[in-house]
Amino acid sequence: MQSEHRHYTSPLAQRYASPAMSHLFSEEHKAKTWRLIWIYLADEQRKLGLPISKTQVKALERAQDSINLKRVATWEAKLKHDVMAHLKAFAEKAPAAEPILHLGATSAFITDNAEALIHRDALVMIHAKLASVLKVLHDQMLKYAALEMTGYTHFQPAQPVTLGKRLALWAQDLLADAQEIEHYLNLYRPLGCKGTTGTQASFVVLFGNDRQKVQRLDLAVVRRMGFSKPVALSGQTLSRRSDVAMLNVLAHIASSLSKLSYDMRLMQHTGEVREPFGKHQVGSSAMPYKQNPMAAERMTGMARFVITLAHNAQWTHAVQWLERSLDDSSNRRLVIPEAFLATDALCDAAFRILSGIRVDEAAIKRHLNRYREMFESEAMMMEETLKGGSRQELHEKIRQDSVAGRLKVKESRWPLSGAAEHQVLDFARRELKPWLRRNEKALKRSKEMIQKASV
Amino acid sequence: MQSEHRHYTSPLAQRYASPAMSHLFSEEHKAKTWRLIWIYLADEQRKLGLPISKTQVKALERAQDSINLKRVATWEAKLKHDVMAHLKAFAEKAPAAEPILHLGATSAFITDNAEALIHRDALVMIHAKLASVLKVLHDQMLKYAALEMTGYTHFQPAQPVTLGKRLALWAQDLLADAQEIEHYLNLYRPLGCKGTTGTQASFVVLFGNDRQKVQRLDLAVVRRMGFSKPVALSGQTLSRRSDVAMLNVLAHIASSLSKLSYDMRLMQHTGEVREPFGKHQVGSSAMPYKQNPMAAERMTGMARFVITLAHNAQWTHAVQWLERSLDDSSNRRLVIPEAFLATDALCDAAFRILSGIRVDEAAIKRHLNRYREMFESEAMMMEETLKGGSRQELHEKIRQDSVAGRLKVKESRWPLSGAAEHQVLDFARRELKPWLRRNEKALKRSKEMIQKASV
Amino acid sequence: MQSEHRHYTSPLAQRYASPAMSHLFSEEHKAKTWRLIWIYLADEQRKLGLPISKTQVKALERAQDSINLKRVATWEAKLKHDVMAHLKAFAEKAPAAEPILHLGATSAFITDNAEALIHRDALVMIHAKLASVLKVLHDQMLKYAALEMTGYTHFQPAQPVTLGKRLALWAQDLLADAQEIEHYLNLYRPLGCKGTTGTQASFVVLFGNDRQKVQRLDLAVVRRMGFSKPVALSGQTLSRRSDVAMLNVLAHIASSLSKLSYDMRLMQHTGEVREPFGKHQVGSSAMPYKQNPMAAERMTGMARFVITLAHNAQWTHAVQWLERSLDDSSNRRLVIPEAFLATDALCDAAFRILSGIRVDEAAIKRHLNRYREMFESEAMMMEETLKGGSRQELHEKIRQDSVAGRLKVKESRWPLSGAAEHQVLDFARRELKPWLRRNEKALKRSKEMIQKASV
Amino acid sequence: MQSEHRHYTSPLAQRYASPAMSHLFSEEHKAKTWRLIWIYLADEQRKLGLPISKTQVKALERAQDSINLKRVATWEAKLKHDVMAHLKAFAEKAPAAEPILHLGATSAFITDNAEALIHRDALVMIHAKLASVLKVLHDQMLKYAALEMTGYTHFQPAQPVTLGKRLALWAQDLLADAQEIEHYLNLYRPLGCKGTTGTQASFVVLFGNDRQKVQRLDLAVVRRMGFSKPVALSGQTLSRRSDVAMLNVLAHIASSLSKLSYDMRLMQHTGEVREPFGKHQVGSSAMPYKQNPMAAERMTGMARFVITLAHNAQWTHAVQWLERSLDDSSNRRLVIPEAFLATDALCDAAFRILSGIRVDEAAIKRHLNRYREMFESEAMMMEETLKGGSRQELHEKIRQDSVAGRLKVKESRWPLSGAAEHQVLDFARRELKPWLRRNEKALKRSKEMIQKASV
Repeated sequence: MQSEHRHYTSPLAQRYASPAMSHLFSEEHKAKTWRLIWIYLADEQRKLGLPISKTQVKALERAQDSINLKRVATWEAKLKHDVMAHLKAFAEKAPAAEPILHLGATSAFITDNAEALIHRDALVMIHAKLASVLKVLHDQMLKYAALEMTGYTHFQPAQPVTLGKRLALWAQDLLADAQEIEHYLNLYRPLGCKGTTGTQASFVVLFGNDRQKVQRLDLAVVRRMGFSKPVALSGQTLSRRSDVAMLNVLAHIASSLSKLSYDMRLMQHTGEVREPFGKHQVGSSAMPYKQNPMAAERMTGMARFVITLAHNAQWTHAVQWLERSLDDSSNRRLVIPEAFLATDALCDAAFRILSGIRVDEAAIKRHLNRYREMFESEAMMMEETLKGGSRQELHEKIRQDSVAGRLKVKESRWPLSGAAEHQVLDFARRELKPWLRRNEKALKRSKEMIQKASV
Repeated sequence: MQSEHRHYTSPLAQRYASPAMSHLFSEEHKAKTWRLIWIYLADEQRKLGLPISKTQVKALERAQDSINLKRVATWEAKLKHDVMAHLKAFAEKAPAAEPILHLGATSAFITDNAEALIHRDALVMIHAKLASVLKVLHDQMLKYAALEMTGYTHFQPAQPVTLGKRLALWAQDLLADAQEIEHYLNLYRPLGCKGTTGTQASFVVLFGNDRQKVQRLDLAVVRRMGFSKPVALSGQTLSRRSDVAMLNVLAHIASSLSKLSYDMRLMQHTGEVREPFGKHQVGSSAMPYKQNPMAAERMTGMARFVITLAHNAQWTHAVQWLERSLDDSSNRRLVIPEAFLATDALCDAAFRILSGIRVDEAAIKRHLNRYREMFESEAMMMEETLKGGSRQELHEKIRQDSVAGRLKVKESRWPLSGAAEHQVLDFARRELKPWLRRNEKALKRSKEMIQKASV
Repeated sequence: MQSEHRHYTSPLAQRYASPAMSHLFSEEHKAKTWRLIWIYLADEQRKLGLPISKTQVKALERAQDSINLKRVATWEAKLKHDVMAHLKAFAEKAPAAEPILHLGATSAFITDNAEALIHRDALVMIHAKLASVLKVLHDQMLKYAALEMTGYTHFQPAQPVTLGKRLALWAQDLLADAQEIEHYLNLYRPLGCKGTTGTQASFVVLFGNDRQKVQRLDLAVVRRMGFSKPVALSGQTLSRRSDVAMLNVLAHIASSLSKLSYDMRLMQHTGEVREPFGKHQVGSSAMPYKQNPMAAERMTGMARFVITLAHNAQWTHAVQWLERSLDDSSNRRLVIPEAFLATDALCDAAFRILSGIRVDEAAIKRHLNRYREMFESEAMMMEETLKGGSRQELHEKIRQDSVAGRLKVKESRWPLSGAAEHQVLDFARRELKPWLRRNEKALKRSKEMIQKASV
Repeated sequence: MQSEHRHYTSPLAQRYASPAMSHLFSEEHKAKTWRLIWIYLADEQRKLGLPISKTQVKALERAQDSINLKRVATWEAKLKHDVMAHLKAFAEKAPAAEPILHLGATSAFITDNAEALIHRDALVMIHAKLASVLKVLHDQMLKYAALEMTGYTHFQPAQPVTLGKRLALWAQDLLADAQEIEHYLNLYRPLGCKGTTGTQASFVVLFGNDRQKVQRLDLAVVRRMGFSKPVALSGQTLSRRSDVAMLNVLAHIASSLSKLSYDMRLMQHTGEVREPFGKHQVGSSAMPYKQNPMAAERMTGMARFVITLAHNAQWTHAVQWLERSLDDSSNRRLVIPEAFLATDALCDAAFRILSGIRVDEAAIKRHLNRYREMFESEAMMMEETLKGGSRQELHEKIRQDSVAGRLKVKESRWPLSGAAEHQVLDFARRELKPWLRRNEKALKRSKEMIQKASV
């Protein structure tokens, strides 16, 4: 029995999310990223003339990868401060740089800036996976653009749509979600070098009140991190408003995929469309005949988890005090990684379901025929109005006839699903295709990442 | 005793929100807006060649304002369908147009498109009020840009900031919120003419399968409404994803103002900054000496209400079924108006508090002096490091000295609040001022709207 | 156009909730209840020897009902304190008692104690309505105890149940909810007379440090209110924990009824069971043939509203500060009434749906027969195991056969729905019936209250 | 680098919760508990006469502990069904019992019944920890029952309380929480033996329609588990309503402890009461002088996490479909363990803070003296009223004098904190002490469990 089986381990890491996403939120990756930020700080301070030598920076760079998390734990037990513990362990590996490490910085400098990198990478990963999901949706929606099927409002039969149209509606929501990630990343500004309470006072001292240099350091560090500029103003940390926006992006993906999962579950009920099902897969330990939409149901449950997690960010922001209160820390440590891991799992599940979607055209036709008379009545109402009838009187007549079961209609000349097919083609041509083209690189990256593992 | 005192009336309408916002969500305004949408539909159908006469359209236009909500109620009691009830009441006032009213439309055509207008107007109102709040913040933050005061992290004294800087941090969050409204409105696409299940089937019949005309009608109606184009795809309604985005915009404003309200309450505790207090105002019915931050506290409570309301939108979207499920209706009817009304009240309260903010410079100085020694220690640590000392050793020494109460430091040459003042000026110059200039019209409109009533 | 049509009015009061519940949360009822509490205080203080005359108490009693809310509003505009405003208006009507009104009290004494009465009455009303709902469920579940129908897990056909069993499952949840109301009311202790910060200091002074008398006053006032004893400890207000418990009771009802509404919507889809539908009712303004489960859908949406409202109580409690922070006030003013009104509407809707439930036995049989072979396979698996077969091998064989469509089974001797009928009868006999008998008075009261109005 | 550092690991298991709680939710413990349930089923079926031999049961018992989770994983990869995978792995270790394993059962029989054991043990653990917290509170509140300190309403100085009274208020909330656990466990009924859709159909077949035996099996299995009786009715699973109640119990603890944490943070601000602080502890990596209320802040953040997690249970219940939908599974797998782990961590943190609370009596006196004049005014107002003055006029006079800074009062004869001390003593004597006495065993158990590790 491995030790990890003796304590709780999050099924997100073990069961649902991809190893790549899980690694982004590992202790190892955090430690490395923190060291990277310390190195950037020291090196940029050196360039701006502070008494830091190239040798010292080199010492840090050499030590970056020799991470000993046990040693960190020992320090933390004593100091009860995780950044200080990592700093001590880092300094031990690069004693030459010890005197100048973390110069002018506060813990939030390390944690917030490291998060800027980790969260960006995680968002880029989600964005790439959405690209894959959108690519499958694109292909499937074109394939089924004209396949007419019963529409459902109130989950009661309603005027027909096409399967492609349904897929396109999911795509439209997810496309908006993907663009929201882009928007978020465009607006995102990392903390940079702001000091203990955001005033840059330590840097003002270090640079002898040379505001130019203070600003250049602020800019240089975030440039090294790959961002265009730092946030204008901060307290000790970035405003936790940026978490709200980020987590809401994930929650929006979750609610779009939740809607998708419900639609899949309902279509699997009617038998028209099913999710993939493994050859040896067992649907039920007691009812051997069952083929349940388990992957879709899992998505519903996982989406719920993401949506509630996101609420934490909103409350954390709402109750912050002045330059900072630490009640964000324990909460964010749980909420942010788990929201990313669960969203990652959701995207992978969506990809697998949509790739292996099973369409039963016979069942679709059967359902459609059952209600055809009713469906024709709308066209009839329109045509009679064109001929001068009163829409309102016709509506009442059809209503009464159909309740009484005496509705008689003749077949319309036009497709029951109206312009559904054309809507799909237009949407593909004008919106989805161009976006996919702009995101070919993400798409390629994602293909490699998409988990092959079973749903 | 008026009848409205005998049943529950929302304090949002009676006590907190502005009459203007309250009117936007009144039964009267809804009825008028619905009629407007019916008129647009009929008139644009006429222009595209359907058998609708100018006389019919005129009849509708003439009847638009003669709204009799009692008559509507009578119809609704019978039909149990609110759109049909309004339609009947409208048709009675314009019998000539009765046969062609609502032609090709479904209820969601009326409700969703009317909401596009109402919600846009409500968002524009909130945006204008944010402009006013940002203008006050701009002026106050410049006024107090250099006023040094004790910083607080963990609500423990920390390196000094300036009052202007604190105000600027609030402004930075609210500026992002205001820009989010702009972003939302830019992306927003109304439903347009999509028919019962979004396929435009009824319009396809009406226009004899002329897809061009179907699209032209779709476009023309939303142009009349003042939007650039309709949504590409819909089920019976717009994807409820757009509610999620809209309500989150309001929730973001609420959480930014919640943070502001907490900061105000904490500063009122230290006595450094207070909200306005009326001459005859009673702080407590039992402790006559009290001056409580009641307006700020009210904001905290109201913000909480908005934030939880917004969760409804997310769940509604997440659990929608196929072309539409009606479980959105009763929920949105409550959630959307109340979220707007409460946000409106929040903005008004923020404006009043910030306009009348009372700053006690003596108290501020007193607090600052109390901790001055500790605050100087950071600069000392920096300066000793510049001279070759080890940052890490200095940190530990200061820590021990200060716990033991034997910390001795000399005064720094540089301001304790570092670059705070310059940060404020830079932020004003680069971000806030230009935005205010771009939004002068909104600002002007808002000034007229801002409630003069007491907090 | 009435003025109330020109501003927002909550559809809860106008459209969904019962007039009786709405009146409980009216301004009028609040004012009267506040005066009642003032009278109780004065009279009990008099009895305990404070210098208050019978004449003064009589003056208050005579003035109790002459409420002028306009006058209150005038005072509030000046004092910006609602309790003080009501106090002034009351005192004006009973000038003799003016000097001793509100003696030793703080605003929370009035508001919290008045709420104890209002919330109790509201809970009793909800409890009575649940009794009615449970009575209908009881009768319907016995009627349909043996009516076999297709079971659904994952909304895929599963071993048959009976309709009565489904109704009984709803009843079991709602019975637990009703008992939770009883439990809550049993534990509830009103604030009583605790003074400004809960220390009873003012009463200690008034009674010359006679602790006995202080306690007797505390007890006497809540006895007058109909409660057995006051809370042991409070700050300025009752711990807001009691709101959490109360709102969660409502949220539990809402989630039980939400589950019920989903089941109804799904059964209406299969056509087996439908909600009532009015003769003139219009299902859709565009698809005249439609009969949608609108009442059930409305319940889903309303339940969502209640559930999110309840979260407010939890957050309000979680962020209270020391003896009291006022951020509870604006929030509770909205959340508590609306949660009650919406729950009231939910109960009425459930009653109407369940009373008029339409069961299509032919459809039920049709569905059941379609899957009968599969359903028989479970019994077969059991019987073969009894004969010595391996359960595991049989499971795998049936799984493969049924995927391949070659499943062959013979009919079981025993009912497909197992013990479902007996479970229903046992539950009725052992749990539901005894509870209904214990609550006959509530039931009777409720019958009078249940809204006759349409769904 | 250990592999667990390369992927995400929940800080709940690694950093915050106790090993004992973490083990309850481990894969190992789950596997063992599942096997226990299988053994109970087989053995009780044997006793009731099904063709199961003692040898077979013995084989299962012998195999119970030889758990190979790798083997389980291999099976799950093939079958995509976790219960079936565990069943296969178990059967391989006890081949003699393979044919009769899981007889008549469905997966939910295993998972729901195993959870009954695990959740009960987890609740008992939380209950015991609350007992420890309440014991510390009891001792501290008696110690400080008479220590007068400034009261705060609106975080503005208000009539004095005592420190003991503040501690007692926390205790009163937590006592209610602990009693809620007892109430929940009293009402809790496990699933027992209900079969695939709750009808016990498989058992009806196995026992040849002998309802007595079906019921005896149902009862016998839950008796073996240590419960008094099974739930009356179920679908495939227990109604998810019981999760709602359970998670709300945890959320109530969280919100009570959140309130406590806020009070601690505010008192640490005024310097009157502080949480413990380690000798080598570093308050800030940049401001060496800082002693922040980090443990209390961590509690605030963790409580937020628990509260939002609990919402999942409510939504899961609210959206269940008919006999069962599987969207509960992935969600509960995350939500329930994490809610327990975080609550466990919260209780441990509360215990440590309260045990090591640091009270600065000088600071307390300093604050009190600062506002003494104002505080005396309430007693003065009372005494003047006793002498015949008008309470209302006195209130207005004091209000004006105190705003104008000319308030003059003489010292009251009675304690400023009124009956606070006596309230504490009464509460201890009547409520807390008796409860602690009734729970001495829990208390003892808890002492051993309470984590010695630092906050």
